Amino acid sequence: MTDFASYEKSGVSIDANDEMVGQIYASLENTFSPRVIAAKNGFAGMFRLDYNQAFKKNYKNPVLVACTDGVGSKVQLAAMAHQYDTVGIDLVAMSVNDMLVVGAEPLFFLDYLGVHKLEPAFIAQLVKGVAAGCTMADCSLIGGETAEMPDTYRKDDFDMAGFAVGVVERGYTIEGDKVRPGDVILGLASSGLHSNGYTLARDICFKRGRFSMTDQPEGLHGARLGDVLLTPTRIYVKPVVQVLADHRENQVVHAMAHITGGGLVGNVPRVLPKHCDARIDTGTWPVPDIFPFLQDKGPVQTDEMYRVFNMGIGFVLVVDAKSAQAVSTSLADQGEKVFTLGEITEGTGQVRLTLAICH
Amino acid sequence: MTDFASYEKSGVSIDANDEMVGQIYASLENTFSPRVIAAKNGFAGMFRLDYNQAFKKNYKNPVLVACTDGVGSKVQLAAMAHQYDTVGIDLVAMSVNDMLVVGAEPLFFLDYLGVHKLEPAFIAQLVKGVAAGCTMADCSLIGGETAEMPDTYRKDDFDMAGFAVGVVERGYTIEGDKVRPGDVILGLASSGLHSNGYTLARDICFKRGRFSMTDQPEGLHGARLGDVLLTPTRIYVKPVVQVLADHRENQVVHAMAHITGGGLVGNVPRVLPKHCDARIDTGTWPVPDIFPFLQDKGPVQTDEMYRVFNMGIGFVLVVDAKSAQAVSTSLADQGEKVFTLGEITEGTGQVRLTLAICH
Repeated sequence: MTDFASYEKSGVSIDANDEMVGQIYASLENTFSPRVIAAKNGFAGMFRLDYNQAFKKNYKNPVLVACTDGVGSKVQLAAMAHQYDTVGIDLVAMSVNDMLVVGAEPLFFLDYLGVHKLEPAFIAQLVKGVAAGCTMADCSLIGGETAEMPDTYRKDDFDMAGFAVGVVERGYTIEGDKVRPGDVILGLASSGLHSNGYTLARDICFKRGRFSMTDQPEGLHGARLGDVLLTPTRIYVKPVVQVLADHRENQVVHAMAHITGGGLVGNVPRVLPKHCDARIDTGTWPVPDIFPFLQDKGPVQTDEMYRVFNMGIGFVLVVDAKSAQAVSTSLADQGEKVFTLGEITEGTGQVRLTLAICH
Repeated sequence: MTDFASYEKSGVSIDANDEMVGQIYASLENTFSPRVIAAKNGFAGMFRLDYNQAFKKNYKNPVLVACTDGVGSKVQLAAMAHQYDTVGIDLVAMSVNDMLVVGAEPLFFLDYLGVHKLEPAFIAQLVKGVAAGCTMADCSLIGGETAEMPDTYRKDDFDMAGFAVGVVERGYTIEGDKVRPGDVILGLASSGLHSNGYTLARDICFKRGRFSMTDQPEGLHGARLGDVLLTPTRIYVKPVVQVLADHRENQVVHAMAHITGGGLVGNVPRVLPKHCDARIDTGTWPVPDIFPFLQDKGPVQTDEMYRVFNMGIGFVLVVDAKSAQAVSTSLADQGEKVFTLGEITEGTGQVRLTLAICH
C-alpha cells in the first residue's frame, strides 16, 4: 500500500480547525456591539463606523488609531500553570491601554494565536480570555486567526498577538504638547507585573530560584506565586475614556502613558515635551509585594527594577494642576486606585525618580 | 561580587530594541499616505479616515473591515534559507487578499514579530518585506511590535502576524447573495504555493524527500527548489479594487474568494449561496510545476492536493455572465493572468471539480 503524504500526517488538522471555529464563535458574539456586521464567510470582520447619531455628533473628522502587542513570555507562565483563560485579558489590555494614550476609545479587536497543536478546548480557553478582555475594554472581538505550527511551537507552547482599532476626533488627539511645568502627575495602580518583564521574573523565580507555581513564599503574604504572576493586566479603558469625555472641551488631560516595558523611566518620557521633566516621588504609592519579592530573590538592582517593571503604577496621566483633584476623584469613583506621583518641572524631557526605599 | 539578575542576562535586550526601532522607521515611512499622522511617541498608529474629498464622496456610511493572518510555516522555510526580506510580502498578502473578498480597499497594516533574539539587521529585513507588501497593496504600515521571546522561539525561528484594516461603503459589501446560476467563475493565477500547505510541502521536500533548498530537481525545469517555495504570495489588491470601482453601481462582481488553506474546494463554498454550486473544470488553467512535483514526491492523492493547495489559482471572482468578458479584460490589462474556470449552476452550495489529469 502506498504511504501517501497528507496534511494530517504532516501535523496539521483541517477538521480540528472547523470544530474549533464552532466552539469559539459564541465567545466572539458575546462581545458584538450593534455596529458589528456578522461575517457570513469568515474572510473578514466588519464594523460600521457611523452606526449612531452620537458617533456622528462626536466625530466630524475621525482619526483611526491602531495598536498591536503581545503579552511577552507571560504565555510561558500560562503554559506552565495550564491556566489559559486569563492571558487573553492581558492581550487586550496591552493594546487598548496603549491606544488610550492618544485619547482614543477602542472599537474592535482581533487576535492571532500560534500553537503547536490545534486542540479546540485549549483554543476556546484562550479566546474566552480575549473575549473577557474585550468586554472589559468595551470593544468587539470581530476576528482572529489560529495557526497550527508544530515545528515552530513546542508542545504546550504558544504565542499570541492582539490588534486593536479605535477612534479619536482629529482636534482632540493627546500628544503631550500641552504639558507644562506645574502639571500634576497622577498614577493608576497596576494589578501586578501586567505583561512586562516576565523573562526576568521567570528567570528569578524558576531558574535562579527553585520556586513552583503553587508555592506561597514568604513575602507574598500567603498568596500563591502562580496566582500573583498570572494576575491579568488591568484595563484602564472605561474610567479614562469617561474622564476624557467629561473634560473634552477644556482638555485638562495633557498627556498619558501606559507603563509597559521600560517602566516609568522608559515610558513617561515618550509623552513629555523637550523642555519638561517629570519629577516622580517613588514613596507616593504602595509597591505591591511581588516587586520587592523579585528584587530580593534576584537580587536585582533598584534602577533595573524601575527600568523593567511597572513597580505598581500601570498608567499615568499628566493633568492641569487646577483640574487634578477633579480628575483624580472621578477616576477613584470609577474604581481606580489613584496616586499623585509628582509634578512636571522645567527640564529636558527626562523622568527624575526620587527613590524611596523599595522594601 | 553579587551576581545581580537583570533583563539583559535573562535574555532580553532593551538597547537592541531601541537600535532596531531606528532602523525600521524608514521602511514604515516609505509606505505612509498623506492620511497617516506621524506618531510621536510610538504608543499607537494614527490614520485620518476623512482625509480628502474623494473619500467623503465615496463613503457616506463607511464600514471598517479588518483581517488578521500569519504565513504559516513558510517562516520556517525563510529561516532555513536565511532569506528574510520576502515573507513580509506574504504576510501582507494573506490579510489584504482576504479583505478584498467583501469588496474592501485596504487602508493600513500592522505587524507583530515574535523572535528568539532581537537582532536589528534581521528584524529590518523582515520589516523591509512587510513594507514592500504594503506598497504593493496600497496601504500604510502604521505600526508593529517585535517581541523577543528566547524561551518560546528557538534560535533562528520566528513567527509573524499581520493585521489589515480597510473600508467599504455600507451598500456595496460583497456577500455572495447576488450569485446565481449562469454566473461565470474567473480565476487569477497564483504565484505558487502562496502561504498555505507549507507543513506538508516541507514534509515532502525535506523529510520524506532529501532535497536541499538549492537543489534544481527534475520537474522544476531548472528552478531552485528554495526559490520556488519562497516565491511571495501574489497581492491582488490594485486590479481587484480597480474593477470594483469601475463596476460599482451595477455590481457585476457577485462574489470573490481568496484561495488559502482548503484550496478551491474549501474556499469557494464560503461565498456561495445555498442554492448554487460552482462547477470548476480543472483543465482550464496551467498548474504550476511545483504542484505536480509535490504530488509526485509525496506521493499525495489528487483530492488531497486540491484540499490543501491552491493548485495555481490564488483568487476567484464570480461575475455576472454579461460582464465576464469586460471584467476579465480589465484584470488582464492590469497584469493578471485570468482564466475562466467554469460557471455557477443550481445546486447545494458545493464546488464540483471536474478533474483533469494533473500532470
